Order: sequence, then C-alpha cells, then structure tokens
Amino acid sequence: MKKKKEVTIYDLAKELKYSPSTISRALNNHKSISQKATKEIQKVAKELGYRPNSIAASLRNNKSKTIGIMIARINRPFIASLISGVEEAARKAGHNVIISQSNDKYENEINNAKALYDSRICGLIVSLGMETKDTGHFKQFVDQNIPIVFVDRVPDAFNSYRVIIDNYAAGYRATRHLIDEGCKRIAHFAGAQHLNVYNLRKKGYLDALREHNFEIDEDLIIDLNTMSFEEGEEATYKLLDMENPPDGLFSSNDTAAVSAILTARKKGVKVPDELAVIGFNDDPIASIVEPALSTVSHPAMKMGEICTQRILEHSSKNLDTNISEITMLDTEIIVRNSSKKKKLETILEAE
Amino acid sequence: MKKKKEVTIYDLAKELKYSPSTISRALNNHKSISQKATKEIQKVAKELGYRPNSIAASLRNNKSKTIGIMIARINRPFIASLISGVEEAARKAGHNVIISQSNDKYENEINNAKALYDSRICGLIVSLGMETKDTGHFKQFVDQNIPIVFVDRVPDAFNSYRVIIDNYAAGYRATRHLIDEGCKRIAHFAGAQHLNVYNLRKKGYLDALREHNFEIDEDLIIDLNTMSFEEGEEATYKLLDMENPPDGLFSSNDTAAVSAILTARKKGVKVPDELAVIGFNDDPIASIVEPALSTVSHPAMKMGEICTQRILEHSSKNLDTNISEITMLDTEIIVRNSSKKKKLETILEAE
Repeated sequence: MKKKKEVTIYDLAKELKYSPSTISRALNNHKSISQKATKEIQKVAKELGYRPNSIAASLRNNKSKTIGIMIARINRPFIASLISGVEEAARKAGHNVIISQSNDKYENEINNAKALYDSRICGLIVSLGMETKDTGHFKQFVDQNIPIVFVDRVPDAFNSYRVIIDNYAAGYRATRHLIDEGCKRIAHFAGAQHLNVYNLRKKGYLDALREHNFEIDEDLIIDLNTMSFEEGEEATYKLLDMENPPDGLFSSNDTAAVSAILTARKKGVKVPDELAVIGFNDDPIASIVEPALSTVSHPAMKMGEICTQRILEHSSKNLDTNISEITMLDTEIIVRNSSKKKKLETILEAE
Repeated sequence: MKKKKEVTIYDLAKELKYSPSTISRALNNHKSISQKATKEIQKVAKELGYRPNSIAASLRNNKSKTIGIMIARINRPFIASLISGVEEAARKAGHNVIISQSNDKYENEINNAKALYDSRICGLIVSLGMETKDTGHFKQFVDQNIPIVFVDRVPDAFNSYRVIIDNYAAGYRATRHLIDEGCKRIAHFAGAQHLNVYNLRKKGYLDALREHNFEIDEDLIIDLNTMSFEEGEEATYKLLDMENPPDGLFSSNDTAAVSAILTARKKGVKVPDELAVIGFNDDPIASIVEPALSTVSHPAMKMGEICTQRILEHSSKNLDTNISEITMLDTEIIVRNSSKKKKLETILEAE
C-alpha cells in the first residue's frame, strides 16, 4: 500500500481559496481572522482529515504537550500507582504522558534521558535508578528550561522540584512498631545507601533502636542491592542461620519482606511469633501472603498528581528552573498479622 | 536562568571554516568528506556540545528510531516482561522505546495512538484494551507505512503482524488438567469475550468438557469485565454459595484465581480438596499464595523480542504494511498445589 499523502495547509488554501497564512492562523484561532472564516476553515480542515504536523509545530514552539516519565521499573506497584497519578492529572490538562524505564541500569537511564530530551517533552518526572550516583544527564533539561520533578528516589543536590515521602519518620515508626510488639533483636533489610529513600529509612531504624536503648548489631543489618525476592531469600537464610537470630525484621520494601515470610515458613520459623516482619510500600502481595504483611503505605497516586501539577504550573507561569522546592508527604503504618506478636500471644493465652 | 543557545551546524561552520553542508555531511559520516575532515569536525562538534536536532531530523526522514508501545496496564507482570523483551531487542539495535498505557479505557487508547503517531515513531506494538472493539485509530499508522505489531490481545481482522499464544490449546489443556485431577464440576472465570485471548480460552474450556462428556452448566461460567481481584472475589462467593458448588475452577487470569483461593479460605472451603484452582499467566503472586497456584505460563519476554524483530525487519526491508503475518507461541501448564487433588488424596491415604 502506498502512503496516503497528508493534507497540508497548502491543500486547504487551494480548496478554500484563502492564503496559506490565513489558513494557518485560522487553525490556530488567531484573532486577526474573522470568526466566520475561522469556523469555515476549521470545518473543512476536519472534513479533509487535516492534522497539524506536531513535529513541525514542536520545532517552532520547541515544546510539546507531552510529559516524560523516567523510572527504574514499571512492574512495581508503587511506580504503577505513581504513573496513574501523573496520567490522570495530565489528561485533565490535555497533556499526554510517555514512559521509559531504565531497569535500574545507569546506562539505560542516560539513553532514556537523551531520547526524551530529543522528543522535546515539556517536562520530566524522574525516579532514579538503583545504580545512579550522578545527575549530569539531567543538566540538558535545565539548560533548556524544561522543568524536572524528581520523585521518591531523588538526588540530594540538584536544584529542581522534589516530591518525596518522609522516609526517616517512616523507618523510625516501622521499627518502633516492632519494639512495641515486644521484639528484642530487630534486623533490617537496607537498600542501596546512596539513594535517599533507603538511607533515610535506615537512619530512622537506627535512631528508633538507639532511643529505646537497643544495642546496634551490624550483623542484623543486611545491605541489599536491588531488594529483589532472591536477595530477600538469601538474606533471610543468613539471618535465621545465626546463632542468635533476630525476632523482628524491618525490610525497606515488601518484595524482600514477603520473601522473608516465605523463607521463614520453609525453615519452620513461625511468623510473627518467632519473627515479626514489617515491609514497606503496601504492594498487593502484602495482603496475599500468609500471614498478611504489615507495611508502610505512601500516597503514590497523590505523589504522581503533585508531580504533574509542578510541571503544569512551571510551564504556565514560565518559571525559572533554577529553583529548589521540596514537597514531603506523610506515610502510614498498616498493621497486619505478620507483626502482631502481642495480640497473638494474648489470643493464645485466652484460649 | 536563560536558555543556553544550542550549537548549530552554522556555528560549527563558522568555527571550523567549512561550509554548513560539509559540516552536515561530516556529522553524518558521508563518504564525500575526507576521513581527516570528518574526524576534525566530529571532534569539535562534540567539544562545543553540538547535538543533532532530532525533531528536524525526524521531519526530514519522517521517522525516528523510537518504537512505541501501547498497552492497557503497565502493572501486569505479563506486560512488564513483554516490554522488557521489546526493550532488550530494541536497545541492541540502537532503538529507544516509549510506552503509553490506556488503563483499559478506549478513549485513552485513541489519545495515546494519536500522541505516538504525532511523535513519528518508527513502529508500534499494541496490546488492546478491554474496552476496545474497533481498530479505526490504528489506520493512520498503516496509511503512513508505519508497521504495527499486535500482541497478545489482538484484533481479529486487521492486516498487520500479530504475535500471540495458542489460547485455545492453553484453555483446553488447563481444563483437561482439572479433569485429570478428578474434578467433576469445573467452573470458568471468562474475560471480555470480544477479546481473542479470553474468547479462545473459553472455547478450549468448553471443548475439553464436551470431549470428556461433561455437561456444560452455564451457571458455572462467569463473565468478568476486567478480571480484577474484586471481581474474582464476588464471582467466587457466587460459585461457592450455589446449591451444587463446583469442585474445580479454571480462571483466565491469575489475579482472579488468587482471589478465588483467598475467598475459599475465608469461607472454609479447602483448596484443592474441595476446590481445585488453575489460573493463567504465571504472575509472581501465583508462587506466593498458599497453596501455590497452578497456572499457564507463556513466553512473554520472547513475545516482546519477536515484536521488535518484526518492526526492525519491516523497516530495514522497506516492506509493505498491507500484509498479515501471525506468529503463534506455545504455552506450558505449571502444576502447583492449588490443583493437586489426586496427589493430596494419595498422601492422605498413605498417612
């Protein structure tokens, strides 16, 4: 099949006996063209299937109505909710959203940044990959006054919008919950420590222990690279094989926490009696695993909406990118059976 | 901060005392320019931070090196694996991938199609949304000879590439597995019947029953709209509350199947003894739920790779879009504890 020739402004001009510039202005609702002519031209343009050439339009305006998202992995429920939040707010404002994922690879992140930059997106929303330690590849956006909103996994030093949760407070509260339930030796699955989210959750964990006069045992803190199911399994075996194993575990994500519950089950270690577990994210698996996983939930949809709002405001107000603005949202501890040591004991005693 | 002015070919020409056309050819490794000059020009271009204007380049070539993906929901493990397959093959060939999701909404799918079309992608990979019943919004790609590969959820009548699994055979084998395990009344969670994947799985289910002289009981076939967790729960209550409830269930996805297992547990119905369950997709939750879910696995990564290959071949060979080519891949039944009725009985008898 041959390509159908696209209908151009020149075709419309010929058809309607107006000059191409009149056609162009009418299609852009320019005030200099009468309402009558504008209406007529737009009607015929629609009938003939005229579509504005958006690349040419982008070239002129140097901006599209497309928001780009760069994330590490699309298959994380938190990320999926975040993207839904971005999309909903964007659609309401007539914007489109395109997504690229790095699979936590630094090199992919650089390529994705370039691809989105070359697509002339009007704004960029980024959650950093696990390997990412510098932000040089984002400078190109700042140089062209394209707003960047970093979300969740954000760099420490980069003048831009940042939308985050209070990771320190969340880590502190999750750990204190285990202390409240009677845990005496609390282990921690920590993520990549150059990333704010994992670093702050660990700080919260450490401070909660210190403030409750727990000794810090470095052997109970296991640094995971990607917080995968497999890493969680290996780390749990390591913990449970210790001479003096932990009776509590705060994992910085749900995937590794669920892995810990299943591994404990395989080893005949009872959850929560012998090992109370709390995760982070409130992924759907948290409700499916048995016993159901206690966890920390955060407003992922809301975070996505705020990201879009920042970009739309920035564009509409023609703000400068040389700014730094942090939005911090609160989290919530969700207590399920995997950490209810106390209640279970009470029930057992009552029986 | 003011925008930095971008370095153009004209800036390079001025700097290097070559004509702009020489600069342009050298940057594109044109044979007519000496190796020495090409090397010099590319070196200085790099030093001055010259970047090719990809929108202008796209405008000339009318094609980018970007493959677009349109899917219903990014948060499905099957879709995530499929996308990984697309991306890996694309990256090897120096192509980028951008993704848009419709959330199973027809209107979003139309907008996404337009946005990707306007981005001048070099090829499109589509898995249809639940609401989509016509394909008019894809005609624009065919008209411009942009190859489309439909994958998994594909339209019946559309000349294009299609990459699918053998849904009929999979439905047949999943049902026969339950028959082999001794089930006498087998229910089915069917998805939207205008979509090939669900329609063919149901046909396989029906034929397996007929060939084994089972009576077809329409009350045991429940049509779900989105196959969500909530829909699965409601449908399971309906089945288990029947006077003569089923003792087997083939669900067209894992989400609803896991929901059935959890709902059965809540109602005190034993899985697999009283209700044997098999799902579809082999999502990670299938291994996490207790008892672990038997399911049908398909080669999602491989499907994604094939999609990319079709697009790359189409582009490199300058093929016509007016073709129809179907690639059908095989599936595998994965038997876990949720359907092992027989073995469990054997074990119980032995005890």
